[in-house]
Amino acid sequence: MNDETRYETLDPEDWDKMRALAHRMVDDAVTYLETVRERPVWQPVPDEVAARFDAPAPEKPAGADAVYQEFLESIFPYPMGNIHPRFWAWYMGNGTVFGALADFMAAVMNPNLGGGNHVANLVEAQVVGWMKAMLGFPPDSSGLLVSGGSMANFVGLAVARNTKAGFDVRELGLRAAPQPLTVYASTEVHSCNRKAVELLGLGGGSLRNVAVNEDFTIDLRALEAALAADRAAGCRPICVIGSAGTVNTGAVDDLNALADLCKREELWFHVDGAIGAVAVLAENVKPRLRGIERADSVALDLHKWMHVPFEAGCVLVRQAEAHRRTFALTPEYLEHESRGLAAGHLWFSDYGLQLSRQFRALKVWMSIKEHGLERFGRMIARNVEQAQYFGRLVEKEPDMELLAPISLDIVCFRFNPGGLDEKTLSALHKEILMQLQERGIAAPSYTTLHGRYCLRIAIANHRSRQDDFDALARDVVRLGRELVAQFHRSA
Amino acid sequence: MNDETRYETLDPEDWDKMRALAHRMVDDAVTYLETVRERPVWQPVPDEVAARFDAPAPEKPAGADAVYQEFLESIFPYPMGNIHPRFWAWYMGNGTVFGALADFMAAVMNPNLGGGNHVANLVEAQVVGWMKAMLGFPPDSSGLLVSGGSMANFVGLAVARNTKAGFDVRELGLRAAPQPLTVYASTEVHSCNRKAVELLGLGGGSLRNVAVNEDFTIDLRALEAALAADRAAGCRPICVIGSAGTVNTGAVDDLNALADLCKREELWFHVDGAIGAVAVLAENVKPRLRGIERADSVALDLHKWMHVPFEAGCVLVRQAEAHRRTFALTPEYLEHESRGLAAGHLWFSDYGLQLSRQFRALKVWMSIKEHGLERFGRMIARNVEQAQYFGRLVEKEPDMELLAPISLDIVCFRFNPGGLDEKTLSALHKEILMQLQERGIAAPSYTTLHGRYCLRIAIANHRSRQDDFDALARDVVRLGRELVAQFHRSA
Repeated sequence: MNDETRYETLDPEDWDKMRALAHRMVDDAVTYLETVRERPVWQPVPDEVAARFDAPAPEKPAGADAVYQEFLESIFPYPMGNIHPRFWAWYMGNGTVFGALADFMAAVMNPNLGGGNHVANLVEAQVVGWMKAMLGFPPDSSGLLVSGGSMANFVGLAVARNTKAGFDVRELGLRAAPQPLTVYASTEVHSCNRKAVELLGLGGGSLRNVAVNEDFTIDLRALEAALAADRAAGCRPICVIGSAGTVNTGAVDDLNALADLCKREELWFHVDGAIGAVAVLAENVKPRLRGIERADSVALDLHKWMHVPFEAGCVLVRQAEAHRRTFALTPEYLEHESRGLAAGHLWFSDYGLQLSRQFRALKVWMSIKEHGLERFGRMIARNVEQAQYFGRLVEKEPDMELLAPISLDIVCFRFNPGGLDEKTLSALHKEILMQLQERGIAAPSYTTLHGRYCLRIAIANHRSRQDDFDALARDVVRLGRELVAQFHRSA
Repeated sequence: MNDETRYETLDPEDWDKMRALAHRMVDDAVTYLETVRERPVWQPVPDEVAARFDAPAPEKPAGADAVYQEFLESIFPYPMGNIHPRFWAWYMGNGTVFGALADFMAAVMNPNLGGGNHVANLVEAQVVGWMKAMLGFPPDSSGLLVSGGSMANFVGLAVARNTKAGFDVRELGLRAAPQPLTVYASTEVHSCNRKAVELLGLGGGSLRNVAVNEDFTIDLRALEAALAADRAAGCRPICVIGSAGTVNTGAVDDLNALADLCKREELWFHVDGAIGAVAVLAENVKPRLRGIERADSVALDLHKWMHVPFEAGCVLVRQAEAHRRTFALTPEYLEHESRGLAAGHLWFSDYGLQLSRQFRALKVWMSIKEHGLERFGRMIARNVEQAQYFGRLVEKEPDMELLAPISLDIVCFRFNPGGLDEKTLSALHKEILMQLQERGIAAPSYTTLHGRYCLRIAIANHRSRQDDFDALARDVVRLGRELVAQFHRSA
């Protein structure tokens, strides 16, 4: 190496200049969040901005200041919108400024939580312990933070597969299965469960889609019938997935009834609680989640209703040993020691797919300590109240209707002045949705229930206020009437 | 809701106070990294500190300032150590301060890169495009950022499974496989590939461990023999995994030869390049990676030798359609639109396990722009030179020996003054390793090669200087001699 590059690093050449830039960045960021309400919920990325992202990778350094300037011009003005008080699309959280600062500190320390004797693992063990206590899981159950609900469900279903298959799936693979292995969930279960079942090699067809009741919860008699039919046909049922908050309508399956059934039928009881599990913190939801503490495994998300910045999911498994048996490999170069860096019993890599794991526990730890669980409970309860409030606005308005019961914080509704067929209503609402988004008014999403297209708001938003829902109801009716008038004129 | 909680949010009550705290945090963080060399590489977490992490979740808010104070006292002083210039354990990067600031900004914007029309997806598409260009993959290949090498390998192997099985694995599952499906890799392949094969339901036994040559690269004749034997036994080989940098010794398989073989045998060619793929940027490594551009899929890590903070891995798949066919579900509530928030063709959730995806692309984008690819190439090349330099120190010292050829940036070595049996040498080096770590001198790890326990340094470190290796060589010999003298005294 020559003298010029001998002492080159990726560290700043001038630390004070980096310090000054860091100050600008946090100032800009705090102002950005402080003023988010004043800006449109969303706006499309202009073509000329989008075109900037076709450029090849630079060979030469631009330096941090110039890169930040480019960020300010081309990236910062075009957020997805889920930080905004009137974003209710899909199902997302807002994040918080202190949560973002925690992510910064996590990246500064930059530890790897695969395992070992360093403090970050203790932080993760603590927050996983908090989740266990929150859901009523025993202290000796296992768990780890993961990227989100998809991975949390994948982990739970992997343990279910390996534990209930009745043979050594890890070594032999599913081709050795004497009988087809089957998994059960309602037709409303989140699609990531199907993806997990497919990836685990069980085959998408082994996920039985059980019919739902009028309130979109799983039909227990249909489930029992499916189990009986499969057993009669020579299948080996291994697992039932209960939904604690479905993505379409927020329906919560009868978890106690599912726990009873799984106990009786000796099945693994997995709960997809990505949407609703953390609502045990809210007094107005908690009773409906009874039975979640009896699950064999639960998937929950902290980047949704707990507003920890992406990504932060969590999986809990009642039988720690079954969990470890599914994932631990522990080759020699990762052998666990009694002294030094590789010491300690906290080897999260033995409980999941990842070996290198970021310090996502820090933002969970800092967020929960900043606010305390009670405040999270109040925020969640308020979102549920806001859904009820908006539901009443819809019911009071003769030209609007609800398409599903309001279970948690999700409202499915539409403008329906009468006299329009389903095809017209569908086209109308697609246009209403686009205009709400394009005008920056609000960001609902949509779904189809019993073949009827409707708007859908999922209120996992700590910034939403009552008047935001007044505005939404008003604007949907206004846009609906405008568009119907246009349709009539053009017809 | 009552008046007290009507306007409560998770936002700061006092934005200026949060601004002031944010300034303190970035000052502390910049100083922490500026002065990292002055501190010990690692120190154990004291018991009284560890005990603090047994506390239950707080019900009441502590406020951001108090939480940060607790962070400063209980967490910040106990990093893993991989930010330090003399950390060479396992295989990790250091991170950078601007990379950490990028993570902060990503969390402030907090978008979800599952898909849709917002700028974050363009950033990810751009950096994935950079990776394609870097490795010589065609522009119409697909790819996405993932949590790291484990997930990148999992994705590549999932596509391999579904594409080469010869039947509809997604729907039918592996029980429907007419023949056992088999996968091939050297005995030195990273364990995460075994984990992936197990999770995918293929069975760990279907991963054939092929013998290696003296230089720890895969033995091509052994591989051909294994393929022939399996075909003769009625198996269906589907995939060969080449290692571009093994974790034990940094060995790079002959990728062109593997590509030829896979073409001839109609197998999927996956490359685990978590360690070495990014070394195509370094002139002194690039020639040895020839053939990587012919892979069907490649796993690479940016949080290792590119020093992007955890987590940042990437997977590339030559046939975008095969990639999408493995993962896309696209249920209606995620249907892709031509207008609005859900518009655009960039739906990364169609190419991986996760639906909610953080803006990890930003730290990759900001890091590569800050430094330019040439500088990363120089940093990587220097680490390889440092490995060679340390190898020469070992060879010059009569009481030390190398245990494996130095391929990339990994050196396996030991103190061996002669006259000690393997058992004693093993005990001796376990103690040398502990003392190096416990005294905060350096953090190597260890491995066992041909039954011989040895120290191992993996120099993916932009902060390491030549004198750090002088110090390591000196201290290993010094500690070795001290310990041998103690052994003799106590014997």
